[in-house]
Amino acid sequence: MFNEIGTILWSDKPVEECGVFGIFAPGLDVARLTYYGLHALQHRGQESAGIAVADGSQIELQKGMGLVPEVFSGHSLDKFSGFAAIGHVRYSTTGASSPLNAQPLVFRYAKGMLGLAHNGNLTNVADLRAQLASTGSVFQSTTDSEVLVNLIARYNANSVEEALMKCMIDVKGAYALLIITEDTLYAARDPYGLRPLCLGRLGEGYVVASESCALTTVGATFVRDVEPGEIIRIDRGGLTTTHGLTAQCPAHCIFEYIYFARPDSTMDGFNVNKVRREMGRQLAREYLVDADIVIPVPDSGTAAARGYAEESGIPFEEGLMKNRYIGRTFIQPTQEMRELGVRMKLNPIREVLQGKRVVMVDDSIVRGTTSQKLVAMLREAGAKEVHMVISSPPVLRACYYGIDTSNEQELIAAQKSPEEICQSIEADGLHYLSLEGLLDIFAPKEKNFCTACFNGIYPVEVPKQTQGGKFSLE
Amino acid sequence: MFNEIGTILWSDKPVEECGVFGIFAPGLDVARLTYYGLHALQHRGQESAGIAVADGSQIELQKGMGLVPEVFSGHSLDKFSGFAAIGHVRYSTTGASSPLNAQPLVFRYAKGMLGLAHNGNLTNVADLRAQLASTGSVFQSTTDSEVLVNLIARYNANSVEEALMKCMIDVKGAYALLIITEDTLYAARDPYGLRPLCLGRLGEGYVVASESCALTTVGATFVRDVEPGEIIRIDRGGLTTTHGLTAQCPAHCIFEYIYFARPDSTMDGFNVNKVRREMGRQLAREYLVDADIVIPVPDSGTAAARGYAEESGIPFEEGLMKNRYIGRTFIQPTQEMRELGVRMKLNPIREVLQGKRVVMVDDSIVRGTTSQKLVAMLREAGAKEVHMVISSPPVLRACYYGIDTSNEQELIAAQKSPEEICQSIEADGLHYLSLEGLLDIFAPKEKNFCTACFNGIYPVEVPKQTQGGKFSLE
Amino acid sequence: MFNEIGTILWSDKPVEECGVFGIFAPGLDVARLTYYGLHALQHRGQESAGIAVADGSQIELQKGMGLVPEVFSGHSLDKFSGFAAIGHVRYSTTGASSPLNAQPLVFRYAKGMLGLAHNGNLTNVADLRAQLASTGSVFQSTTDSEVLVNLIARYNANSVEEALMKCMIDVKGAYALLIITEDTLYAARDPYGLRPLCLGRLGEGYVVASESCALTTVGATFVRDVEPGEIIRIDRGGLTTTHGLTAQCPAHCIFEYIYFARPDSTMDGFNVNKVRREMGRQLAREYLVDADIVIPVPDSGTAAARGYAEESGIPFEEGLMKNRYIGRTFIQPTQEMRELGVRMKLNPIREVLQGKRVVMVDDSIVRGTTSQKLVAMLREAGAKEVHMVISSPPVLRACYYGIDTSNEQELIAAQKSPEEICQSIEADGLHYLSLEGLLDIFAPKEKNFCTACFNGIYPVEVPKQTQGGKFSLE
Amino acid sequence: MFNEIGTILWSDKPVEECGVFGIFAPGLDVARLTYYGLHALQHRGQESAGIAVADGSQIELQKGMGLVPEVFSGHSLDKFSGFAAIGHVRYSTTGASSPLNAQPLVFRYAKGMLGLAHNGNLTNVADLRAQLASTGSVFQSTTDSEVLVNLIARYNANSVEEALMKCMIDVKGAYALLIITEDTLYAARDPYGLRPLCLGRLGEGYVVASESCALTTVGATFVRDVEPGEIIRIDRGGLTTTHGLTAQCPAHCIFEYIYFARPDSTMDGFNVNKVRREMGRQLAREYLVDADIVIPVPDSGTAAARGYAEESGIPFEEGLMKNRYIGRTFIQPTQEMRELGVRMKLNPIREVLQGKRVVMVDDSIVRGTTSQKLVAMLREAGAKEVHMVISSPPVLRACYYGIDTSNEQELIAAQKSPEEICQSIEADGLHYLSLEGLLDIFAPKEKNFCTACFNGIYPVEVPKQTQGGKFSLE
Repeated sequence: MFNEIGTILWSDKPVEECGVFGIFAPGLDVARLTYYGLHALQHRGQESAGIAVADGSQIELQKGMGLVPEVFSGHSLDKFSGFAAIGHVRYSTTGASSPLNAQPLVFRYAKGMLGLAHNGNLTNVADLRAQLASTGSVFQSTTDSEVLVNLIARYNANSVEEALMKCMIDVKGAYALLIITEDTLYAARDPYGLRPLCLGRLGEGYVVASESCALTTVGATFVRDVEPGEIIRIDRGGLTTTHGLTAQCPAHCIFEYIYFARPDSTMDGFNVNKVRREMGRQLAREYLVDADIVIPVPDSGTAAARGYAEESGIPFEEGLMKNRYIGRTFIQPTQEMRELGVRMKLNPIREVLQGKRVVMVDDSIVRGTTSQKLVAMLREAGAKEVHMVISSPPVLRACYYGIDTSNEQELIAAQKSPEEICQSIEADGLHYLSLEGLLDIFAPKEKNFCTACFNGIYPVEVPKQTQGGKFSLE
Repeated sequence: MFNEIGTILWSDKPVEECGVFGIFAPGLDVARLTYYGLHALQHRGQESAGIAVADGSQIELQKGMGLVPEVFSGHSLDKFSGFAAIGHVRYSTTGASSPLNAQPLVFRYAKGMLGLAHNGNLTNVADLRAQLASTGSVFQSTTDSEVLVNLIARYNANSVEEALMKCMIDVKGAYALLIITEDTLYAARDPYGLRPLCLGRLGEGYVVASESCALTTVGATFVRDVEPGEIIRIDRGGLTTTHGLTAQCPAHCIFEYIYFARPDSTMDGFNVNKVRREMGRQLAREYLVDADIVIPVPDSGTAAARGYAEESGIPFEEGLMKNRYIGRTFIQPTQEMRELGVRMKLNPIREVLQGKRVVMVDDSIVRGTTSQKLVAMLREAGAKEVHMVISSPPVLRACYYGIDTSNEQELIAAQKSPEEICQSIEADGLHYLSLEGLLDIFAPKEKNFCTACFNGIYPVEVPKQTQGGKFSLE
Repeated sequence: MFNEIGTILWSDKPVEECGVFGIFAPGLDVARLTYYGLHALQHRGQESAGIAVADGSQIELQKGMGLVPEVFSGHSLDKFSGFAAIGHVRYSTTGASSPLNAQPLVFRYAKGMLGLAHNGNLTNVADLRAQLASTGSVFQSTTDSEVLVNLIARYNANSVEEALMKCMIDVKGAYALLIITEDTLYAARDPYGLRPLCLGRLGEGYVVASESCALTTVGATFVRDVEPGEIIRIDRGGLTTTHGLTAQCPAHCIFEYIYFARPDSTMDGFNVNKVRREMGRQLAREYLVDADIVIPVPDSGTAAARGYAEESGIPFEEGLMKNRYIGRTFIQPTQEMRELGVRMKLNPIREVLQGKRVVMVDDSIVRGTTSQKLVAMLREAGAKEVHMVISSPPVLRACYYGIDTSNEQELIAAQKSPEEICQSIEADGLHYLSLEGLLDIFAPKEKNFCTACFNGIYPVEVPKQTQGGKFSLE
Repeated sequence: MFNEIGTILWSDKPVEECGVFGIFAPGLDVARLTYYGLHALQHRGQESAGIAVADGSQIELQKGMGLVPEVFSGHSLDKFSGFAAIGHVRYSTTGASSPLNAQPLVFRYAKGMLGLAHNGNLTNVADLRAQLASTGSVFQSTTDSEVLVNLIARYNANSVEEALMKCMIDVKGAYALLIITEDTLYAARDPYGLRPLCLGRLGEGYVVASESCALTTVGATFVRDVEPGEIIRIDRGGLTTTHGLTAQCPAHCIFEYIYFARPDSTMDGFNVNKVRREMGRQLAREYLVDADIVIPVPDSGTAAARGYAEESGIPFEEGLMKNRYIGRTFIQPTQEMRELGVRMKLNPIREVLQGKRVVMVDDSIVRGTTSQKLVAMLREAGAKEVHMVISSPPVLRACYYGIDTSNEQELIAAQKSPEEICQSIEADGLHYLSLEGLLDIFAPKEKNFCTACFNGIYPVEVPKQTQGGKFSLE
């Protein structure tokens, strides 16, 4: 798990932004459980980590830059006592990479203390920030979350739920939100359910997390997904739920299934591993190649490669070995870092590839640089033919809902046709999963997903001045 | 200079809270000049240091825990470019010792960016904080300064000056305030002029600082003190001044002259060294002892000891040698640290003291622990008699205007009569400078000073729930 | 119709508070149509009347104390030009009887002009008013509506709909709300649908009104009821609808059917006349008396009396003649006015009553004073027996949702058993319709109604300090 | 007095806008005293009148359109009880002539009730209104006063004085302000003292009024003028004073002396009658004509004419008789009304004028229409020569501080030279008092006056979009 992080950061894949974990469980070591929960969500963000613990009278916070085990030691967790906690792992979407931007954010306001952890991206944050500033709000960071915190403080005349209901009216975009007060845990999800959030039971307590894999990790039982527009409140009196604002039709992020989520997670009714296997089968139906072996680009292409192999009857092999011991220092999410290191990370296995016509299954092509290197590597290792098979449609448009897909100018599929891409990566063939094929897997719920990165149909308004995937607020 | 800091922290003296330095000087290296200015003010605060530099379009900030040279390297100063800067050294008065509380504070608000450095203490900050919170403000720290920043943001419909004028109506307490925007430097002083602030000229530019010694250090010429209630604005168009709110009579902190300020500073018309020398003369007039030598407790007792010697005719000697090489790691301003180390710091010189009747001049007795140790030291070194002479009246009451004199319960003079104190420190005699004697030095301006710590006449309302010198906002 | 108003005010019946009418119809004389619409709703409020007309660039307002024809002349209507209008007739629920409290309220705010007409009663208006005042709102009247106006102004960052959605979160109580801006008409109904509001079509335009009888009057076609929690927006682009906050189960005011609404209105799926006729039938099933004639207390008892006659087979007669020419000057809604005048208003017809055993059907008994006088009148006119039959259950509790049922202390059924009431009004028998019997009429939608005045089950929180039906804000 | 009002409205003179009167006098009939005080100030405003009375727990208000005796009857004054009151007479400067705009304005806000009466004109009211609206304020009228009320409510965290101090920072323009709460009277004057306000003593109580003539009328003793920027608070504890914002140099309206104020008033140290007499003397020194008689245009030219006669030795005569019985109904301050009626109002006395060379003294020429008619009248009555002598310099510029001098386009002196004016009014000579001559009268305080209407030196910023004297906010 730990090393898998490298995979994400050292490639040109889209980058997930954040993961959140919350727990309300009097009697248990909530800080340590949050640590484990965040660790299970580490693939969703490696830049910073933080935990805020509530003990009934106040909130204690620890956060820092780095991976979860780098930020927290067993020692530092011991100092926490309390019965509720929220945690956050972050990969910067908006806001610079800075300690000020690490989450959870803890602040004092008229009703006491409040901590907030947020996964997602608000698309009208600049407007909201300007509105808040025009009536006196000041900002010390450039995150969406500080805007949310100020909105909540403005709106919380009666209860956090009512404040969140009003926030939902103002805030456009994607959010899975955890809030902690001195004695209560809240969870909320945007009206479209763009970002995932699920609820579990742990003894007498409750757990909420971005992915169900984090529930499993801490020994909790999956109960259900938090519904789009739902606001859950958990305190000593138990769990209550309120519906804020619900879109007419959900728009869950389909890329979670293609790439981001851990295979052992189940989201909004679909198990990730099963979906990926089915993508592979569908690819084989759409594009059956006369080949000798099917190999995945590990790790995210593995399930789809198995599906392709099963459907096509072509043998599945592991033709690329992942180096699980890449040393890492602190990672800056800049372009040049992404360009580096494919070769450091993946090694072709000549014994498998030599003289073979190869179908290589990957989940997506964003900039194309990695694919080109992979094809070249396979040929060097003796592959006779290399057919690239991609378990997603071409990524043509930027995401404004919490995924860092880079500027549209950098998206190779936005610039070139599949034929041109095939040429540029020097493959013998290239096939992207069709959007229809992808959506069929989710039938009859195929309308419940956001496919904006493939077809530009954005369910939520996007910022007026689009500046690519990571738009500047600074 | 550097080692002198030790003197303050390792004793039981009142502790000055902060020093501020600001500069507007296009063409000069304002960051480096601020560094030197803060270094000259290091005696006013050793817990944290920070510099914010404005370049016309934004404000860059660097701050950290520790002494000025610990926070800044030459290298780190090089990265700054700009034409205006403010700096701050802090000893915590309100707000816990925490990186969050270090200044300057830089924030974004409706009109752009704003940095703030503050020396002093607001006495109604809890009320102001509650009022601001009731209309939506959120707070990430527990400092006065974050309250000021929010007030300014609320009030700044037209100009920073108008905002400060309105702040002056709301804010009670002591403040010398520097504010920087992207292109302008502001300086303001509370209506009573409780904390010092002076203005200097450096080439075509301007410098403002807590003490004139910082002007001298950077080569600036002293122009005048900032007046009580005055708001100064400096930009490329030059300097303009506005009067906000002015008290009927100033109330400058008299303790600056007794102890805090550097001898080479001149404040509100009086040179510190000269005032101290005069205190010694007055002491000799009030309490002439038949003794052989007059010695100071270095360094702050030196000038008064010279004055006493001059007036009395008794020879001045240096009977206590200060260890200028005390190693120091980062200093926590807690009680136990203050109790330690008198012996590590000061050594009696047997050659001077042996067989002598000694008049020892110190500036103040706060808790009494140091005095007792000093008297014992002198006797061990052979002194026949030890007369303690104090160049201030007894400190009976807590300060709420930015000086950490500790709780009134800890003030020895609030608990015991001078005779009892004399007994408890085992001296042969003890004399405090009379309040009348002290004020005569400033005649005919003797009414322009705050003497609340001596007589409880507080010019500005004090917090309702007084909790000693360092009242809690947390 | 006009004279029927007298019935309401000169009796001890519960008093409806307000009626609203709105129209968006470019090309039509919207002011005059609103006049006719209000006239059709005059039974819902006789204290003041007002019309606000929007012409695309501004809103013109005329309002005054009195009946619709008293406030407006044909001449005064001619001065209006525009394409949208709202109108209001008011009987004071909260707020004193004063010209300041007449509606619509028209004001200027950050987004331009806005007019508001409101039927209903907010139960947390004191809290809302205090919250608004704490952040600077000032109030010139004591109406709910001024509170709503301020809330809308606070919340209208983006659109009136979003502002209303947020208002729905804050505001507790009953409201049918019409809003007009320079160019748009909005209609909203509280989440429980406590007060009625329906939508009609008039040519290319739209009409909204408290009761469908007003649609008919202006020649509009009934389209549907505005749904609980719905916000409708009508402008030149057509009609759009948004759902704000919807209660789990509606709670339509059942008293509208019993007494307030005009028989020719249809509300939330039920025709008023048909419901009343069915009440009479049910009364006959519950309490069949051996009598000679069934007579109504005109006019509101008529339909139920017919139902009773049909079900029982006892002949229906008109035994009380209403004086349709009672002179009226301006009417003060005070207690003493209600006590007066039964005899001026109703005359028994000896020819019908002489020697008869009479079943007299009325819709409700509030204070009991009228019933006593009626029974006595019938006996004087020769009736041998008088059985009082009431087409509603006993009114035991005050209404906080817009009906002036008076203080609970004044409600006779809250003080006395039916037997005691029968004695006090000196009838030979008394029967109230059972609550079950009443609700059966609405089956299977019997849970969709507010029956708080009968059983104290209040769907929406009531004011903490209940002070009877007309609680004071002054 | 009563008929004199006609003089003002039926001519083309500049129009004073408002008068204010306040009283704090437990034990006296404050409502009736305010009535008399307003009556004495009736020349300052005839459009509406109002009185608000405080009794310790609330404020009662009565106001209406018309003259003081038209709005109040003895009967209506009897209903008031209380110990403090403010009153207002209004001639509309900003805001349409409408009952909504009548003053005092009484409102409820977070701290209770507050009534406000305002003489003057705010020059940045549009900006202030927009700022207030942007944070949720709503407005029902178009007056300056509603803006002031909202500002005070926003700023009143601690006290009305502190709120007024902050208002003074925001508000630009001219104001003499009276405020009443349930138990306290406040008076404030703008930092330049543009509009007059004076303080008197009445028994144990206090009186404040626009002019000292109102003090005399109610039997109060003149104490002093309220100082520019001063805020006076009067309650049962007595009178306290605070200085808000004071301009470097006052700028009292010089036109008060020339025309508006009653001759028996003394303002800011100068008696009006004495000043006017001195103007006449100075005119004679500047422009000595060989004439037979000096006559005034009654009533405001009388004192200057006497001065001219005294200094020149030419006999003073009354050559124009004023009709003191002009019927009046409610007066609309429109242009056409001003043009009418000179002849109805003034009749030449042939016996005095026949064959004479006449010097006619008037206080000012605004549009010139009246002057032309007067000259013609004198000639018709037999005057041989008519020399027009004006006791003010030419009015060249609009006033933005509360005087309705009309648009600059309508000011004859802004369009024509004195020679051209002399021709157009067909006089034999015309002389305006020189500005130097005028100011000499006030020496050595000649710099303490606003002379903007003569020389365009506006002490306070004027509105950006000048639209003449009565700029539109609607």
